[in-house]
Amino acid sequence: MELCIFGAGRIGNIHARCLHQNPRTRLRYVVDTHQPAAEALAAECGAQVVDTETALNDPAIRAVVIASSTDTHADLIERAAKAGKAIFCEKPIDLGLERAKECAAVVREQNAICALGFNRRFDPQFSALKAAVSGGQIGDLEILTITSRDPSPPPAGYIGKSGGMFRDMMIHDLDMARWIMGEEPVEVFATSSCLVDPAIAAAGDVDTALVTMKTESGKLCQISNSRRAVYGYDQRIEAFGSLGMLQARNMNENNLVLTNSNGSSGSKPLAFFLERYADAYRIELESFVDCILGRGELLANENDGVRALELAEGVIESSKTGRAVAV
Amino acid sequence: MELCIFGAGRIGNIHARCLHQNPRTRLRYVVDTHQPAAEALAAECGAQVVDTETALNDPAIRAVVIASSTDTHADLIERAAKAGKAIFCEKPIDLGLERAKECAAVVREQNAICALGFNRRFDPQFSALKAAVSGGQIGDLEILTITSRDPSPPPAGYIGKSGGMFRDMMIHDLDMARWIMGEEPVEVFATSSCLVDPAIAAAGDVDTALVTMKTESGKLCQISNSRRAVYGYDQRIEAFGSLGMLQARNMNENNLVLTNSNGSSGSKPLAFFLERYADAYRIELESFVDCILGRGELLANENDGVRALELAEGVIESSKTGRAVAV
Amino acid sequence: MELCIFGAGRIGNIHARCLHQNPRTRLRYVVDTHQPAAEALAAECGAQVVDTETALNDPAIRAVVIASSTDTHADLIERAAKAGKAIFCEKPIDLGLERAKECAAVVREQNAICALGFNRRFDPQFSALKAAVSGGQIGDLEILTITSRDPSPPPAGYIGKSGGMFRDMMIHDLDMARWIMGEEPVEVFATSSCLVDPAIAAAGDVDTALVTMKTESGKLCQISNSRRAVYGYDQRIEAFGSLGMLQARNMNENNLVLTNSNGSSGSKPLAFFLERYADAYRIELESFVDCILGRGELLANENDGVRALELAEGVIESSKTGRAVAV
Amino acid sequence: MELCIFGAGRIGNIHARCLHQNPRTRLRYVVDTHQPAAEALAAECGAQVVDTETALNDPAIRAVVIASSTDTHADLIERAAKAGKAIFCEKPIDLGLERAKECAAVVREQNAICALGFNRRFDPQFSALKAAVSGGQIGDLEILTITSRDPSPPPAGYIGKSGGMFRDMMIHDLDMARWIMGEEPVEVFATSSCLVDPAIAAAGDVDTALVTMKTESGKLCQISNSRRAVYGYDQRIEAFGSLGMLQARNMNENNLVLTNSNGSSGSKPLAFFLERYADAYRIELESFVDCILGRGELLANENDGVRALELAEGVIESSKTGRAVAV
Repeated sequence: MELCIFGAGRIGNIHARCLHQNPRTRLRYVVDTHQPAAEALAAECGAQVVDTETALNDPAIRAVVIASSTDTHADLIERAAKAGKAIFCEKPIDLGLERAKECAAVVREQNAICALGFNRRFDPQFSALKAAVSGGQIGDLEILTITSRDPSPPPAGYIGKSGGMFRDMMIHDLDMARWIMGEEPVEVFATSSCLVDPAIAAAGDVDTALVTMKTESGKLCQISNSRRAVYGYDQRIEAFGSLGMLQARNMNENNLVLTNSNGSSGSKPLAFFLERYADAYRIELESFVDCILGRGELLANENDGVRALELAEGVIESSKTGRAVAV
Repeated sequence: MELCIFGAGRIGNIHARCLHQNPRTRLRYVVDTHQPAAEALAAECGAQVVDTETALNDPAIRAVVIASSTDTHADLIERAAKAGKAIFCEKPIDLGLERAKECAAVVREQNAICALGFNRRFDPQFSALKAAVSGGQIGDLEILTITSRDPSPPPAGYIGKSGGMFRDMMIHDLDMARWIMGEEPVEVFATSSCLVDPAIAAAGDVDTALVTMKTESGKLCQISNSRRAVYGYDQRIEAFGSLGMLQARNMNENNLVLTNSNGSSGSKPLAFFLERYADAYRIELESFVDCILGRGELLANENDGVRALELAEGVIESSKTGRAVAV
Repeated sequence: MELCIFGAGRIGNIHARCLHQNPRTRLRYVVDTHQPAAEALAAECGAQVVDTETALNDPAIRAVVIASSTDTHADLIERAAKAGKAIFCEKPIDLGLERAKECAAVVREQNAICALGFNRRFDPQFSALKAAVSGGQIGDLEILTITSRDPSPPPAGYIGKSGGMFRDMMIHDLDMARWIMGEEPVEVFATSSCLVDPAIAAAGDVDTALVTMKTESGKLCQISNSRRAVYGYDQRIEAFGSLGMLQARNMNENNLVLTNSNGSSGSKPLAFFLERYADAYRIELESFVDCILGRGELLANENDGVRALELAEGVIESSKTGRAVAV
Repeated sequence: MELCIFGAGRIGNIHARCLHQNPRTRLRYVVDTHQPAAEALAAECGAQVVDTETALNDPAIRAVVIASSTDTHADLIERAAKAGKAIFCEKPIDLGLERAKECAAVVREQNAICALGFNRRFDPQFSALKAAVSGGQIGDLEILTITSRDPSPPPAGYIGKSGGMFRDMMIHDLDMARWIMGEEPVEVFATSSCLVDPAIAAAGDVDTALVTMKTESGKLCQISNSRRAVYGYDQRIEAFGSLGMLQARNMNENNLVLTNSNGSSGSKPLAFFLERYADAYRIELESFVDCILGRGELLANENDGVRALELAEGVIESSKTGRAVAV
């Protein structure tokens, strides 16, 4: 199966290498307006640098991976859908909910396969937790607790175009909440602060936030976000239910323990998403390929992208009004 | 030092035994309207059963421990304060905020020592966490996460007179939040469900709740409560700050680990408060005695009792209105 | 039940306090040639200081606890047995195997109850492990691994009269091995070094040793001893069998975990035997009292004391000859 | 760099894939007398199937990887050394110590690079432990404890040609002991049993063994081996020293923890060496390539292979005679 990738940045490189090492896929084209990045990646993967038009018009290209900047996602999705390609797109579809909905409508009309890069759904720890919850290991899920903290804040320049912490970072957690609870939140509440970096506040954003959600049947969910955890990437989920509790704990750098006169000490959590979700990135593309070949369902599609954005909008409104918001 | 105890129920028994084994204290009187309970406890501790009047009029009695039913607390506090006794009272002062404030005013007028039984402040794990936070081990505290779940719901009959989960159970967590943050919450939000037992809903209460709080400086706190954790008493605190994270994990029944073809397994958390806070109950009375002898400050007094109740009132209002409430 | 204690040193104090707090026992006499120690302990426990004769001749004394220096154990056991008292004696019976056997013969003739203070058999962790092994949780036991390291070496002066590390310290582990395997070792091998303190070598002893044992049916056991573990008292047991592995891990000072840019760190193991085996000391005297009252069997008696000494003798011979020794 | 691989079995496949994915190496030839296996592997890696002669005569081949059956190792090493190739050979060089020494002499004469596949030296956990020990984190190493248990015994047919558990399985642990202690053992003692499978005893081998070693300076080491651990591949190392203890704990399948009314449970250790040492296999070939290119030293060479075999011979003699054996 031949593919094209849009975007040769950090995340584009990850996906391109996964495609290159996967015996089932061949990366044919790399598209990026930044020529040197495109060429370096193409060289590494034995691909060609072309423009969008060429890539989408080539009938040999069966699928595209969109890893370009956020503001290009919706257009590329629509064009690829109309060109009859299967689509894998990094989240979010768009920072604007309306635009995201339009885009999803086009996907629907074209009956396109559109996978959304909610990579955590493919993380082996979290998918094992999800399977255990669905399999009834904790009875009825009652409280879901998601801890999600980045190791360090993004550069101030990124904040402005990120859509803010809720749309940019928490959107992953909002998606995990929907996925693991297996039920839609109907009400969200948010409270937030800027404690990490005043430059973030200056850019109109927050860096520390708590969100509470409730579903129709009364399940509760809490999310804890920070832009800075000095000990590394803090990614934990705890599902509490009528028969017990499941915890997906952090993955650490190694399993070495030193015990001395100060006590016991072990390693830190893995540094950031590249390390923590290395398996997930590989698995999500495998799953995308499987899906194109008719062997399985998409784990996250354009509608999940839209819904996560709706929740983020509700969260933002709640954080401004101090009221729970129906979503 | 001679003392009198009011209440010969479960918690009264615990306190009485601590006093009996403490070489510095002598339990002289037991007061309880339920005669057999009073007599059994008095016999065990070499004390006498008397009525309230006798106990409070005896000048040999330097201090009283109030462990009787909640509706008697405020009256007994006031009478003991006026009789010049040092007072240790189980939480809450009263289920009504106004009554609690009146009572605290009397204590103040009488210049009485009035310790409030927020036992968790004396728990060695939590006080070590508090000391580490205060000592700057995690830099500036940013997010405090308190998980507090009872092993099983109280009998339905108890719910009605308990004041509800927020006043009865979460009040401990509200107090811990104030104590560890070292700063007053200025805003609370609550969401809750009845997922454990419909009889609790029928009694007008909830059994599962999340609370979010924010302080003036922007510190955030989340509390997770359930009336039922099948695995035992779930009592954990996580303090996250600019330089790291501190976790007080559950204490388990033992340190045995079995590894077999199903994986690794260990013991459950301690069953309930009697086991989990056995040390705390002993230490809080030690501390009370120290305080009477002028060797140290009260860790929790009547004002802490009033303030925790104020927070609980705010939480209740928020859970009804769906709005953050200023407290 | 009234008792007498011989020895008012560290371990005598522990036992005396357990007897004093136990509602079923009354400590009547304290015997110690060091008058001030005897008097202090007697005062604390409401007992009287007397000499050995008086104590053993008093028909009110039903049982004695022998916690005096090792060289007095065998004589006191024999005299107490002949005086018809139930006996609890600290290990060892004697440093000489022949003397210990003579003493055990006297106990047998007198049909006396003689409990030996192998306190670890009463430790809740280890007795849970023993119960799980006996209950078949790991199938057939195949390899038993005992790690036993003191926090710091005893004063040089103690080494000379201790009987050496094997008789003094490892004897506990030899006893645990017999008890948990439920089978007698038939062969022992030892290798040892003096790595901690040259003064120990100068006194003719070792401070670091490994012992290997084998039972008739081929079960294997390894013991690892050191006189110095800077991180505290290292007391672990691992039982490996056909269906799995059981580990009794160290008990730590607390359950607090700090995670920061250096990694994760927690507390040390409990400092030494007073802390680590506090429960065991209480439970072993409870069990002794039960046994006197006909409610249960001794968990360790004089024969266990003799057999552990036999194993220690074999270990010492092996460490000198470099050969496995039949025991 | 072009290479040839000898042996297209399980371990040959692992190495071949590492070479195939490594951008610095090209696998040109596969040699295996079992034609279908050779062809399948060659096809997967874009290599050619040839005979030994062709491979060794091709000047384009700079290095060989020997992963064929044990009885071919020494011959292939000698032929490859004489042909001027760099050699990576799976352990052992030969089951016979004399043959291994001859072979090592040829390597020396030819001045060949000869890496020995002691893969555990490349395991990130163990090399971090080694680095920490060498870096003085635990002061002077005093006791090294190696636990090494296979998940299940090999087929009975394998036992006969394996050289026995000590040469086949424990040889890895003997090598780790030398490497981590940084000092040669001068004395070994072994005791063993056949507890897992009578067919192993029938084949003249054992399946459960403990080995004790001592170095010149008095450092002690204990190794615990079993051919069957129902819970997976048990690979742990504990280094105890004057300033503390380092433990490399097992790596588990995942980090999920379930807590319910039975207690807490987590996943098993990784199943076997393919999973546990996946990183090590990749890293050891990287290191081999680096070494050929003059960027670093071999971590294990032919002399390490000979020495480990010498220790195994000593262990075997000790297990037969019941005496410590000088090595």
